[in-house]
Amino acid sequence: MTTNNYQPKPEHKFTFGLWTVGNRGADPFGAQVREKLSPPQIVELLAEVGAYGVNFHDNDLVPIDASASERDQIVKDFRNACEENGIKVPMATVNLFYEPVFRDGAFTSNDARVRAFAIQKTMRAMDLGKEFDAETFVLWGGREGAETDGCRRADEAIKRLREALNYLCEYNIKQNYNYKFAMEAKPNEPRADIYMATTAAYLAFIETLEHKEMVGVNPEVAHEQMPGLNMTHAVAQAWEAGKLFHIDLNDQYPGRYDQDLRFGSVSPKQMFWLVKFLEDVGYEGMRHFDAHAYRTEDYEGVKDFASGCMRTYLILKDKAERWNNDEEIRSILAEIEETNKGAKLGEFDNLLAQNFDRKELASKGLKYEKLDQLTMDVLFGVR
Amino acid sequence: MTTNNYQPKPEHKFTFGLWTVGNRGADPFGAQVREKLSPPQIVELLAEVGAYGVNFHDNDLVPIDASASERDQIVKDFRNACEENGIKVPMATVNLFYEPVFRDGAFTSNDARVRAFAIQKTMRAMDLGKEFDAETFVLWGGREGAETDGCRRADEAIKRLREALNYLCEYNIKQNYNYKFAMEAKPNEPRADIYMATTAAYLAFIETLEHKEMVGVNPEVAHEQMPGLNMTHAVAQAWEAGKLFHIDLNDQYPGRYDQDLRFGSVSPKQMFWLVKFLEDVGYEGMRHFDAHAYRTEDYEGVKDFASGCMRTYLILKDKAERWNNDEEIRSILAEIEETNKGAKLGEFDNLLAQNFDRKELASKGLKYEKLDQLTMDVLFGVR
Amino acid sequence: MTTNNYQPKPEHKFTFGLWTVGNRGADPFGAQVREKLSPPQIVELLAEVGAYGVNFHDNDLVPIDASASERDQIVKDFRNACEENGIKVPMATVNLFYEPVFRDGAFTSNDARVRAFAIQKTMRAMDLGKEFDAETFVLWGGREGAETDGCRRADEAIKRLREALNYLCEYNIKQNYNYKFAMEAKPNEPRADIYMATTAAYLAFIETLEHKEMVGVNPEVAHEQMPGLNMTHAVAQAWEAGKLFHIDLNDQYPGRYDQDLRFGSVSPKQMFWLVKFLEDVGYEGMRHFDAHAYRTEDYEGVKDFASGCMRTYLILKDKAERWNNDEEIRSILAEIEETNKGAKLGEFDNLLAQNFDRKELASKGLKYEKLDQLTMDVLFGVR
Amino acid sequence: MTTNNYQPKPEHKFTFGLWTVGNRGADPFGAQVREKLSPPQIVELLAEVGAYGVNFHDNDLVPIDASASERDQIVKDFRNACEENGIKVPMATVNLFYEPVFRDGAFTSNDARVRAFAIQKTMRAMDLGKEFDAETFVLWGGREGAETDGCRRADEAIKRLREALNYLCEYNIKQNYNYKFAMEAKPNEPRADIYMATTAAYLAFIETLEHKEMVGVNPEVAHEQMPGLNMTHAVAQAWEAGKLFHIDLNDQYPGRYDQDLRFGSVSPKQMFWLVKFLEDVGYEGMRHFDAHAYRTEDYEGVKDFASGCMRTYLILKDKAERWNNDEEIRSILAEIEETNKGAKLGEFDNLLAQNFDRKELASKGLKYEKLDQLTMDVLFGVR
Repeated sequence: MTTNNYQPKPEHKFTFGLWTVGNRGADPFGAQVREKLSPPQIVELLAEVGAYGVNFHDNDLVPIDASASERDQIVKDFRNACEENGIKVPMATVNLFYEPVFRDGAFTSNDARVRAFAIQKTMRAMDLGKEFDAETFVLWGGREGAETDGCRRADEAIKRLREALNYLCEYNIKQNYNYKFAMEAKPNEPRADIYMATTAAYLAFIETLEHKEMVGVNPEVAHEQMPGLNMTHAVAQAWEAGKLFHIDLNDQYPGRYDQDLRFGSVSPKQMFWLVKFLEDVGYEGMRHFDAHAYRTEDYEGVKDFASGCMRTYLILKDKAERWNNDEEIRSILAEIEETNKGAKLGEFDNLLAQNFDRKELASKGLKYEKLDQLTMDVLFGVR
Repeated sequence: MTTNNYQPKPEHKFTFGLWTVGNRGADPFGAQVREKLSPPQIVELLAEVGAYGVNFHDNDLVPIDASASERDQIVKDFRNACEENGIKVPMATVNLFYEPVFRDGAFTSNDARVRAFAIQKTMRAMDLGKEFDAETFVLWGGREGAETDGCRRADEAIKRLREALNYLCEYNIKQNYNYKFAMEAKPNEPRADIYMATTAAYLAFIETLEHKEMVGVNPEVAHEQMPGLNMTHAVAQAWEAGKLFHIDLNDQYPGRYDQDLRFGSVSPKQMFWLVKFLEDVGYEGMRHFDAHAYRTEDYEGVKDFASGCMRTYLILKDKAERWNNDEEIRSILAEIEETNKGAKLGEFDNLLAQNFDRKELASKGLKYEKLDQLTMDVLFGVR
Repeated sequence: MTTNNYQPKPEHKFTFGLWTVGNRGADPFGAQVREKLSPPQIVELLAEVGAYGVNFHDNDLVPIDASASERDQIVKDFRNACEENGIKVPMATVNLFYEPVFRDGAFTSNDARVRAFAIQKTMRAMDLGKEFDAETFVLWGGREGAETDGCRRADEAIKRLREALNYLCEYNIKQNYNYKFAMEAKPNEPRADIYMATTAAYLAFIETLEHKEMVGVNPEVAHEQMPGLNMTHAVAQAWEAGKLFHIDLNDQYPGRYDQDLRFGSVSPKQMFWLVKFLEDVGYEGMRHFDAHAYRTEDYEGVKDFASGCMRTYLILKDKAERWNNDEEIRSILAEIEETNKGAKLGEFDNLLAQNFDRKELASKGLKYEKLDQLTMDVLFGVR
Repeated sequence: MTTNNYQPKPEHKFTFGLWTVGNRGADPFGAQVREKLSPPQIVELLAEVGAYGVNFHDNDLVPIDASASERDQIVKDFRNACEENGIKVPMATVNLFYEPVFRDGAFTSNDARVRAFAIQKTMRAMDLGKEFDAETFVLWGGREGAETDGCRRADEAIKRLREALNYLCEYNIKQNYNYKFAMEAKPNEPRADIYMATTAAYLAFIETLEHKEMVGVNPEVAHEQMPGLNMTHAVAQAWEAGKLFHIDLNDQYPGRYDQDLRFGSVSPKQMFWLVKFLEDVGYEGMRHFDAHAYRTEDYEGVKDFASGCMRTYLILKDKAERWNNDEEIRSILAEIEETNKGAKLGEFDNLLAQNFDRKELASKGLKYEKLDQLTMDVLFGVR
């Protein structure tokens, strides 16, 4: 096995946001460390490392105060860069968090004019995304939250969010955009609490929408792991509900600030189960890396970072296949499957009449320590 | 104001589980410190401290290996104790976590016979609860999880959980039990990961059931705060969805083992928002305290604990009313409401045509620091 | 009791950093929302709200690229502002985290020139602080950490940190500055891991210094609570070791990004124990609020924030006194003290010969639930 | 490479506590699932899997109420088992947490008789350990903490702890036991807060002891990771201070209950740095696995668990060596080392006179993304 086995190809559908490899390394305690790259330069960088596509927030591409002609020029230059480099734009999104106007929320702001502006801005971002044939529209409500729950009732925030989504779905229909909306949850940061704290919160919320069929989720590893939740379980619930419209891959140590680290670099075991799940179920969407390079890096390091994200995904994909084909693992799985073939529930009376020997049912070890250690062996490449 | 203002009364609907005041103080590192109380003794204790009701798992009341005649005697004695002490049984539940047979799950076990046994056990617990006119049936799947995700796919677990719930809803109908099922989530402990990690996960899951109208949630403070989530936000989403069927009150420091501490004793500020929410929206269900006394206590201390739970609830309820009537707070809320009366969304073209001055919209301070400090003043009783 | 009881006075020794009330509300996801205030303007604001003193990092006051004459003018203007407003400068510190040069550490950088530059910058910051008679010099090594432990061994980082501190202590002696150094720990953010993760880590480190008598700690509420540790316990260990040279007060929800919220606004119960400890032991140092206003605020809100920090401290101080004088609480404490008077250890043989009845010793409830609920009552102002 | 490369041998010094492989699977929500093994049976099991030694708490071996003759028989049987199986006893410890008498602390209890009993019990445990030539005596103060900080001041607890340790050190001297004491920290569970929350807290505390040279620390992976701290950094500080007297290896997801999972099964990346550190510095002490098997397992599974702990250690040790010898990694490390050879600090005046070009110093990327991805490749076994 050589390092060349894990080269990214278009069919892997690896995408990056303009804001990821274009991240300049500023943080709450420090200045930017990398020069600004223009969107076409970022596209070139992504092509160089072998990515399939690029995604953007409206203002990643077009500055918020750009004139109409500036906008047109930027769009043209970016389109050219994408075409020349064979880079797609599968997803677009809208920035509803940077500007001071959204300091207390966008769709959920107490100020009706702010809410209207946020929706207007989103519509224009949808227009912009469609100019590049984006098929998915992600919504992350980074400011939809609170520092003090005195400022509004959380159920009122949900109603406002619903009103916004219903309106935007209508716009999607009216314009024949055929977007799939993918809602991205996060529990906190930059707000003390964000209203839709988890992917599951959005899954529940979506069921209350007028056009729920066009709305799904965009789970992010870091956002589920920040509160110590199991990302794969969140993804599984979304998948099982037919709502896994997009995914944000990165890595995160639990209980910390939003780290957006290189995919798989903190929790390779957990990311193994995630990649295995995506591959086993046949997820066909984008593998979007929503991460950025350490602040210690220049743009060569940014390329190392981006390459590393994709490489680790491919390594884990390969290991998932090895796991599925491992004889010893398969033997344990077969034993598990055997017990799964037991009693049917049947009629109530029948079930109530059955006698279960609960001690006998508990008598056999389940071999999960062995199964998990075999998994570690696969992960370490020692079998 | 005197300490006598905060006496529990039946209309407050304060309930405790047999397992809460009956908890004997064992933990993973230590032996029991309190003698066993019989269920009738627990009922007496609850009457003494002024509780409204008592709840139980099947095996809190009837030991798992009790004979039919033992069962009947226990039930009779317990009924007598409840009647003599004026204690109701508003909720029943089933223990699907203690016995070794459930070591790898009950409804989601890989072993079909274990799943069938778990459902049978639940049906019998439903029968038992109905003998006391319980109206709510709580389900906490403490073992529905995994230490290694190799043992089953998480989406398979969801399917199994759905099959169980659909079956039990049918049984509920067949028996005319009219139970409302209340699903209780928890992220981990005793399993490394539990499948339905949050209240929101259940809210999403419920939408996929055949009789979703009879299934809601039972959010627990500790279980939402373990991963550092905002309990009030979880409750608000449940309430807004019409799914707040029950609630478990206690307290918990985030990022730790399941502490089940006296209500309000760790996070009085957060519990203030919670009580305020419940009272403001007119929640009429039980206020169930799912907590237990410190291991340093004897049964006098257990009474102090139980009294403290109810007292703190009533103090916070009183403070919520003061907050609502505080002139300075009302003035800030009125300003907030003023901005809420702004632009309507209207037609797409109209909205797109509007000009929003985002700098002007961001120019005014929102007075949330003041609002929150006024809240602290109310909480501290200094205004 | 009226709201006027809690007015800050000079003897309370409430201080704020230039960077706290001067914080402009930027965060990793959003732009600044407040205009820049000059240092003299900040001093005026602090005087208006009743603070005792102001602290600064070198570059809070003097921009890093200021010329000598610019520096002199700034220093002069600031001194005038302090004198006119009766504001002291009890503490100074150095910014070793903002500039890209420190992206991989200052005192612990792998680059010897960066380490030398960091020490030089600190010496100059010491010079600057002494121009304002600062007595305490705080060192927060925000960049002394790593994203990948491959970059250096953690014990090597400790050695470098020691070399820097020993050198700076010598400089302190040489210059007759008489500074007390106060080391400030933090577990993470902006680095994935910071080397001296807790106050206790510094307490241990200090014992290895050549001039350990001149080095102590500056525990910060948020930094201890980020990993869910008990701030009061950290402070108690520092105090008991004679090393509590300074303290940073704010508030923080555990397991999240560094929030720096208004003192007492998240965890009033925990902050009650902290204030009670400081007052009970007679801590005479500064009460420094290292926090900032919500991003929703203008400078009126910043004043509300600053006033709220001090007001809550004074409320908690008052409650601590009430707690100490509460008859029922004193009665429980007296019972506790009674058991404290038991057997002396004496000679080994004597101790080994004693018979302890461990069941009898465990037979009595300790009344801690009652004690803690009485504490809640004091906190809520209902007794 | 085959699976046979990673066989445990005596020189690896792998040890397990009686309570680890003897753990019967009970937890706060569930009954025991495995039959009790006698100490000699456990010794046989450990010999079978290839361990070097076994450790015990006094009451793991000798029940607390055993008569003198029972004690002698147990000791004799255990010694025989150890000798027959070639199993050493390198460490002993004392159980100061299980019995109700310690419900509010042992060395730090408010009750002087409890403190005396705890010390007496420890002395006897030291006697017992010496009968097996144990060289290290671990102290974990599982109950030295509080649920309410009203019960005692934390600095008072520290003084009591010091008194106990000073007394026990004297006993160690008097008896010529030559024990090295290894203090084990934990932040919480079973107490809401434990006083010595981190390894670093003990490192600081030890400096205040009368015989500090005979006291060091026993860092545990799970206990450092529960609050999300970096275990390797804690170990590095202990090592650098000459205080790494013992180590407890297991695994733990941050922000959760004490999981004590199979070594390396949750955080292989973090455990790689830990093993690499131990091997690089030449740590010669025991590698003690303080973990237990999943509750799904029978004793075959317990063996899988124990074997897995040792196997993963050896895999990681092998990978650490590969990392050290990897050409590309060495090349990056050489570049790092080059910058480490820069300016000396020299005299104050010289340092102050130097000109540092901070932009130039920040201009070069540090290649840490590459370094860390190469580490992942080594970990995955793909280079």
